[in-house]
Amino acid sequence: MSDNKIYQASTTAPVNIAVVKYWGKRDAKLNLPTNSSVSVTLSQSDLRTHTTAACSAAFGPEDTLLLNSSPQDVSGARTQACFRELRALRSALESADPSLPKLSSLPLRIVSENNFPTAAGLASSAAGFAALVRAIANLYELPSSPTDLSRIARQGSGSACRSLFGGYVAWQMGSKEDGSDSVAVEVAPASHWPTMRALILVVSAEKKGVSSTSGMQITVATSELFQRRAEVVVPAHMKAMEKAILEKDFETFAKVTMMESNSFHATCLDTFPPIFYLNDVSRAAIRVVEDINKKAGKTIAAYTFDAGPNAVIYYEEENADAVAGTLKSALGELDGWQGREIKAQSTEGVDARAVQVLKDGVSRVILTSVGEGPIRTEESLITATGEPLKK
Amino acid sequence: MSDNKIYQASTTAPVNIAVVKYWGKRDAKLNLPTNSSVSVTLSQSDLRTHTTAACSAAFGPEDTLLLNSSPQDVSGARTQACFRELRALRSALESADPSLPKLSSLPLRIVSENNFPTAAGLASSAAGFAALVRAIANLYELPSSPTDLSRIARQGSGSACRSLFGGYVAWQMGSKEDGSDSVAVEVAPASHWPTMRALILVVSAEKKGVSSTSGMQITVATSELFQRRAEVVVPAHMKAMEKAILEKDFETFAKVTMMESNSFHATCLDTFPPIFYLNDVSRAAIRVVEDINKKAGKTIAAYTFDAGPNAVIYYEEENADAVAGTLKSALGELDGWQGREIKAQSTEGVDARAVQVLKDGVSRVILTSVGEGPIRTEESLITATGEPLKK
Repeated sequence: MSDNKIYQASTTAPVNIAVVKYWGKRDAKLNLPTNSSVSVTLSQSDLRTHTTAACSAAFGPEDTLLLNSSPQDVSGARTQACFRELRALRSALESADPSLPKLSSLPLRIVSENNFPTAAGLASSAAGFAALVRAIANLYELPSSPTDLSRIARQGSGSACRSLFGGYVAWQMGSKEDGSDSVAVEVAPASHWPTMRALILVVSAEKKGVSSTSGMQITVATSELFQRRAEVVVPAHMKAMEKAILEKDFETFAKVTMMESNSFHATCLDTFPPIFYLNDVSRAAIRVVEDINKKAGKTIAAYTFDAGPNAVIYYEEENADAVAGTLKSALGELDGWQGREIKAQSTEGVDARAVQVLKDGVSRVILTSVGEGPIRTEESLITATGEPLKK
Repeated sequence: MSDNKIYQASTTAPVNIAVVKYWGKRDAKLNLPTNSSVSVTLSQSDLRTHTTAACSAAFGPEDTLLLNSSPQDVSGARTQACFRELRALRSALESADPSLPKLSSLPLRIVSENNFPTAAGLASSAAGFAALVRAIANLYELPSSPTDLSRIARQGSGSACRSLFGGYVAWQMGSKEDGSDSVAVEVAPASHWPTMRALILVVSAEKKGVSSTSGMQITVATSELFQRRAEVVVPAHMKAMEKAILEKDFETFAKVTMMESNSFHATCLDTFPPIFYLNDVSRAAIRVVEDINKKAGKTIAAYTFDAGPNAVIYYEEENADAVAGTLKSALGELDGWQGREIKAQSTEGVDARAVQVLKDGVSRVILTSVGEGPIRTEESLITATGEPLKK
């Protein structure tokens, strides 16, 4: 091609928070997990990555990626794997239909923006790789299904494969060596159980803990309890969780979610040297959720923690005041409550010391809900002349 | 008997700190464990219970127990089981030799004193029941071996059975339904490896956590990883630990000790609802031990935690300055260093934040070492007229 035409497409992609956790790889290069997992996709109104993928002969010669205005290294094996797989799919289309422009051979320029602070310790790589893969797939006009694309996004970041879908999503671990059956599938769309809410307590961590990439490798290598979790505990949790979602059975959903989080962090503690993601503030959040449930006389709230101290608390819309409202009375001064109709509740019956630890240790809250998968958008982060939009 | 003669005998008994942990009962009434365990008996110069057992027709009619000048309830099944078993053994002696005074039918008066604060959260019930059983056995002039007595003390408090021996002690879980083979045996006497030292960091806990008695029952009932620990992990640790002790192989001793502690606390976290004994101060102690070992280029210190936040750090005498000295430079102002020749070391290479957390959260230290089993003493806590000595 001799022209300098700029091709581009944009998408947004969501964050997902697992309720059955991914921890452990059976193949580090392909990001193949030791167990299946399930997540809830969170609403993009609150948390999303917005990505524009463009290509042009005027770019280059290197592929580039700008995230929140900072140039990112794209030479890593994971990003390269995504680019390579997507180009191969485009290349096949071009071979089949010579009238198509040869986009697969053009340098890529990717521009990405998160609508939440990266420092908040939220799983931004999942939304990031899902958006990157989905944006390039849009640019290349690939007919690939979300499950097809999940296979590619997985190679960027394991949990990214689950962000290709909205609602309730399973990542099936698969059994093939090439990873071709290690993909995400929809358990149920957001519309099936739209009343699911999530309150995130962002905890000021003392410092970044062990990265999940290296942490899970050390767990697999050293934890004497890990194999039991992968082979026995998680398969049982997967079955119970998928059933709970299909039946909109919150009590079971909640119990499995909490036991899963505990089981995952137990294998972190059983790692040598031990990995701690939960701190005293996380423990206080667990205590407050336990007390909210006791007060309600049934399980209306469920905590879960990823590879960091932030608590994600799931609850149903009808219990918003009882769950989020109780936390609002303790944390009402923090950012994140604005524009939400949550009525602060008395913290009577809730451990006063735990409430104080949350007051001292939570830096902001995020109120959100189950949401949709990636959404194509015409809003571009790249100008018609190919320059990143100045924010 | 018509006379009012007062019979009495006294003993001291040690605290023990497990390096392979007891957690889980297969029979709650008999205190039969789900797995074997190993402990180090600590020196009675630093930590001990002193108990005098007396009996007389002038007492009673009830058996009584005074601990640190406070009357204790002896009607509980555990104390009653100890009294009953010891009386049965005495009764058999009396039947065989009618010339013996009929002590088995006289009311018991037990007086006990700990030389350490009960509030420190140290495993005082182990020393307490070991001393109680040993003192009554002395009073009754039973020919029972420490292993025989361990079978009785076990029914008072599981880990008490290990305090009948000095040095390095295994509690063999046994397999019989009546618990007759669930007893303590010596792995090696203190003299085999006399250079073992222990530094206890007493952590001010926010409040008493779940009691070990109820905690371990909930773990057995709810943890999905527990069975694996009991059936696979602990047997491997037992084997490695006994070998390490016999070979005085500190590096293996230390690694198994740390992994054991982590494994035990992992199953606590996997309990539902989760049980947390480690807090941020405990985590800081783990970090400091890791850094001390890194700095030394080999494993010279090992942490272990029981059902509470206190850290027990084992090390060998030759590394006293490198291990205890590093902590002394951070915690030198606290009680517990007096009279010990420990040279404070620079904390260079040790995480500064962890050191600060220890400074803020440790309330005192106890420096001690491997020690002997119960020691008979003529020092009595009961006067010739049968009254508890006023302290």
